[in-house]
Amino acid sequence: MSDTLSGAPAPAAAPDFGGWTCPLPLRDHPRVVMGHGGGGALSAELVEHLFLPAFGGGTLAALGDCAVLPVGGSRLAFSTDSFVVRPLFFPGGSIGDLAVNGTVNDLAMSGARAAYLSCGFILEEGVETEVVGRIARALGDAARAAGTEVVTGDTKVVEAGHGDGVYINTAGIGVVPPGVDIRPQRAEPGDVVIVSGEIGLHGVAIMSVREGLEFGVEIESDCAALGTLVEAMLAVTPDLHVLRDPTRGGLATALNEIAGAAGVGVVIRERAVPVPPQVANACAILGLDPMYVANEGKLVAFVPRAHADAVLAAMRAHPLGAAAAVIGECVPEHPGMVVARTAFGGTRVVDLPLGEQLPRIC
Amino acid sequence: MSDTLSGAPAPAAAPDFGGWTCPLPLRDHPRVVMGHGGGGALSAELVEHLFLPAFGGGTLAALGDCAVLPVGGSRLAFSTDSFVVRPLFFPGGSIGDLAVNGTVNDLAMSGARAAYLSCGFILEEGVETEVVGRIARALGDAARAAGTEVVTGDTKVVEAGHGDGVYINTAGIGVVPPGVDIRPQRAEPGDVVIVSGEIGLHGVAIMSVREGLEFGVEIESDCAALGTLVEAMLAVTPDLHVLRDPTRGGLATALNEIAGAAGVGVVIRERAVPVPPQVANACAILGLDPMYVANEGKLVAFVPRAHADAVLAAMRAHPLGAAAAVIGECVPEHPGMVVARTAFGGTRVVDLPLGEQLPRIC
Repeated sequence: MSDTLSGAPAPAAAPDFGGWTCPLPLRDHPRVVMGHGGGGALSAELVEHLFLPAFGGGTLAALGDCAVLPVGGSRLAFSTDSFVVRPLFFPGGSIGDLAVNGTVNDLAMSGARAAYLSCGFILEEGVETEVVGRIARALGDAARAAGTEVVTGDTKVVEAGHGDGVYINTAGIGVVPPGVDIRPQRAEPGDVVIVSGEIGLHGVAIMSVREGLEFGVEIESDCAALGTLVEAMLAVTPDLHVLRDPTRGGLATALNEIAGAAGVGVVIRERAVPVPPQVANACAILGLDPMYVANEGKLVAFVPRAHADAVLAAMRAHPLGAAAAVIGECVPEHPGMVVARTAFGGTRVVDLPLGEQLPRIC
Repeated sequence: MSDTLSGAPAPAAAPDFGGWTCPLPLRDHPRVVMGHGGGGALSAELVEHLFLPAFGGGTLAALGDCAVLPVGGSRLAFSTDSFVVRPLFFPGGSIGDLAVNGTVNDLAMSGARAAYLSCGFILEEGVETEVVGRIARALGDAARAAGTEVVTGDTKVVEAGHGDGVYINTAGIGVVPPGVDIRPQRAEPGDVVIVSGEIGLHGVAIMSVREGLEFGVEIESDCAALGTLVEAMLAVTPDLHVLRDPTRGGLATALNEIAGAAGVGVVIRERAVPVPPQVANACAILGLDPMYVANEGKLVAFVPRAHADAVLAAMRAHPLGAAAAVIGECVPEHPGMVVARTAFGGTRVVDLPLGEQLPRIC
């Protein structure tokens, strides 16, 4: 019950919140570890055994990238993300771009176009005002590029040594078009699995600047807003089953979450997954699997077979989907499990990772 | 342009955000200081000269506690706050209660009842899982008590030494009832200024535990959700002009912001402001002015004179408004300025503070 990290001893009068006791699966970790923020199995444990019981079931339990809510006759999509990426600027973007595109993309994964964003900055005392200014400018530019707007905000400052320059939270709202019902639970056997382009670029770009590694050519983050790509797909058919942007934990984590939520199996042809050579090289050197590396401008779609060719064509006609590819399908076998057919004709299970290969990727 | 606090040198390929240069009023502070987060003049400078130009005009420029937006035929209120209070638990509440009540109250200040909340945690590696659990429980309980629900969330983890246990961001949405138009710009001469109860309790409670000070009796934070109090006031008349919860910067800052936004003068009778004796004593010892100390369960209302008595009676009939009091009025003289008539018959200008007397109060 001590509260050592809060900077002060717990006061004698600290309220007793009904004698909260750590549920069993969390007891291996009496303290938070980096992996709890990695988007993998440890993150899921925290959500399932700590946050869900505390917050109550309801909409949160659906655990999509965003909540879809009835408000005044409309279906509103509502999503939030905090951004703690290190460094603040990286090839292809900054924490400001990421803070917009991450939330815009979460909304897009329900078919909603981002209408409005909120934005909360936590600044560390001593960070250069100019750094904050450049990030705010990048954030505003990214919002305009995505056709949305920051309408409400907040700024807090913490003492030097209690932050890391700039942390940003954004929340976003948008309206889900009539007839659209996109969520992980709708994946079904027969669905074709399509990825919108080359994977692994964001994670490798961050790692390359963070660790000062060079891989011959500079690798840029794929950070982008996917709203217009999703609109192009919905113009083909409103009956997309699942959309997901494979950020923390990469494509492998996104596929596992969908398989688990819908109780279906997923089979991937490993050779069909578009991994650019520079990502493959970097991953080989670093001992990473590109399937687990974060993306910030890609989506994976589960599409009914009847619409798959037309949706793929529409994606390829869009600048952000030019390298879109069918990578596999949804099957009735091995529910909850993702299996990859390797280039050598074998199969392997693609597990949910425990934590994240690279911390603070977004 | 250096990026020293981000933990890595700025990469050579850092994008150039159009050569952002620090606007003049900010040049006195090439680095962020604690006061930029205090809600006073320095905070206002950052919003006006850095965030507004970056994000663009529009709704944000209205600078209310929350934005009111047209969505699918309704008027939606949307607000966000980050919470970095230290310590995490304090007499009368915790960062979990604060994270709910702060955002619920921002929505209530536009007349909206909080319908849904988002919640983003930034955890510091090493914080006790049990501390996170107790805070999440408090947050869930506070949401239920306020009649709202956390529907979407996110968790990030940062390395030890880059946080302070737990930071929380919440955003909230709610529907503004038809016929209600409450915003700072609507203050007008003749309006009666009412405060809902005793001021200064939150700030003094935080300071007392943080500094280990004792003032005879324990002082508890007034942290509370004001949604039902506002509903009781709206039941008297939908024509409330302004509501504001005087958090960071206290009552003085709230009144200054309203006077500035509406271009009106405000006159306060100093003796009429309800300052409880334990707050007065603590402030005398610490050299603080209770008018600048943060509250987390109080509101100040600007009410047309014709409705003032009935609104005051409705407030006093509500548990959170039992000590409500008329403290002054809105006048055509000295637009943008707040003046207090002292107990000795003099007057003094109640300025906007530069920063905040107590950092990390919420």
